[in-house]
Amino acid sequence: MLVLYHFWLSPQSRKLRVQLREKSIEVELREERYWERRREFLALNPVGEVPVLLDGDNLVLSDSQAIAEYLEETQPRPGLLGGSPRQRAETRRLVAWFDRKFEREVSHYLLREKVVKRLNGEGGPDSEVLRAAAYNLDYHLQYVGYLAERRNYLAGDEFSLADIAAAAHLSCIDYLSDVAWERHGEAKAWYAKVKSRPSFRAILADHIVGMSPPKHYANLDF
Amino acid sequence: MLVLYHFWLSPQSRKLRVQLREKSIEVELREERYWERRREFLALNPVGEVPVLLDGDNLVLSDSQAIAEYLEETQPRPGLLGGSPRQRAETRRLVAWFDRKFEREVSHYLLREKVVKRLNGEGGPDSEVLRAAAYNLDYHLQYVGYLAERRNYLAGDEFSLADIAAAAHLSCIDYLSDVAWERHGEAKAWYAKVKSRPSFRAILADHIVGMSPPKHYANLDF
Repeated sequence: MLVLYHFWLSPQSRKLRVQLREKSIEVELREERYWERRREFLALNPVGEVPVLLDGDNLVLSDSQAIAEYLEETQPRPGLLGGSPRQRAETRRLVAWFDRKFEREVSHYLLREKVVKRLNGEGGPDSEVLRAAAYNLDYHLQYVGYLAERRNYLAGDEFSLADIAAAAHLSCIDYLSDVAWERHGEAKAWYAKVKSRPSFRAILADHIVGMSPPKHYANLDF
Repeated sequence: MLVLYHFWLSPQSRKLRVQLREKSIEVELREERYWERRREFLALNPVGEVPVLLDGDNLVLSDSQAIAEYLEETQPRPGLLGGSPRQRAETRRLVAWFDRKFEREVSHYLLREKVVKRLNGEGGPDSEVLRAAAYNLDYHLQYVGYLAERRNYLAGDEFSLADIAAAAHLSCIDYLSDVAWERHGEAKAWYAKVKSRPSFRAILADHIVGMSPPKHYANLDF
């Protein structure tokens, strides 16, 4: 069986967990508090980030998008990138949007301030950083709304890895109760649709000890 | 003909320029000073980054890796990702290493401090930032050396997009004369091999007005 080193509130880990479910691939999850920089973990991935995927005894994969592409190649059904080079380019552009731009401007800050600092005993969050992240989040939700208004799913007609990446990031933020859904109706309608997929169930059941999600987190009719 | 919006010292732009040459694809280059955030350019790519590729009248592609994958799919010869899912995962891991980790820890700082600030009239570089970037660069050159000692090319036996991405970043830094090659013999030998490929010629001929490269920059026997 595949083994996935992950952290519950790592968006890139969640992206792979949902992708694996969509493909009905069984995986053993191992929690990794990557910020502790455990020596054995750094030997698997010198970048020191989750997710890391083990396939068999001697194949160690890292970088979440390299892993996602590997899963698409080795278990192509259902395909989550799109049916043409052009469609796949759009899916990949949006995956990168969330894994790089959204990460850099929103998720990284919120997770660092609200989760890693707390679990690492580094004190409370910096309110100025939280404010900046909330400001950036608003812009990203507008972009999600803009896409959702024009398309069935974020990258086009079909559900794709772009929806998975976006929802993976937003679900982490949502766990920390930072999403003003009421001001973003189109984004909310899209998120409700993605959230109701069976592949999202496990993620909505996540509970980090000592850090409960808000009531609406797992609610499909939030 | 394809059109590539690029900037001369953007590593991700150089990655695509070399990839296009390896595949013998003609491209029209258009320089974009992306930091000026020109409205027409932001309409092509709301992230505001180069490279952006236009293919025909109505296909606009952005995110350098989404474009690289598109080129691999539409013009597969010669293949630059590798022959198996496992090999492609390793190539993609290393491309991400340079385009994300190296970018974040080295290239972004050096290009911002030494190039963008100057062209934008923002004054001289911050020497503390330059020192931090130089410190990080040393670690990355050790990693390049580590890989080059064990493998023919960075990702394995064959020349790949990993070599292109790494050399694209290092060539930008080298243009700014910041690479202590003499302390990194293995990395230097690998770079000499990549630099001597015909696909690198155009990049070694780049000259930014008012900003000449050091003498060794285009020298194949540096």
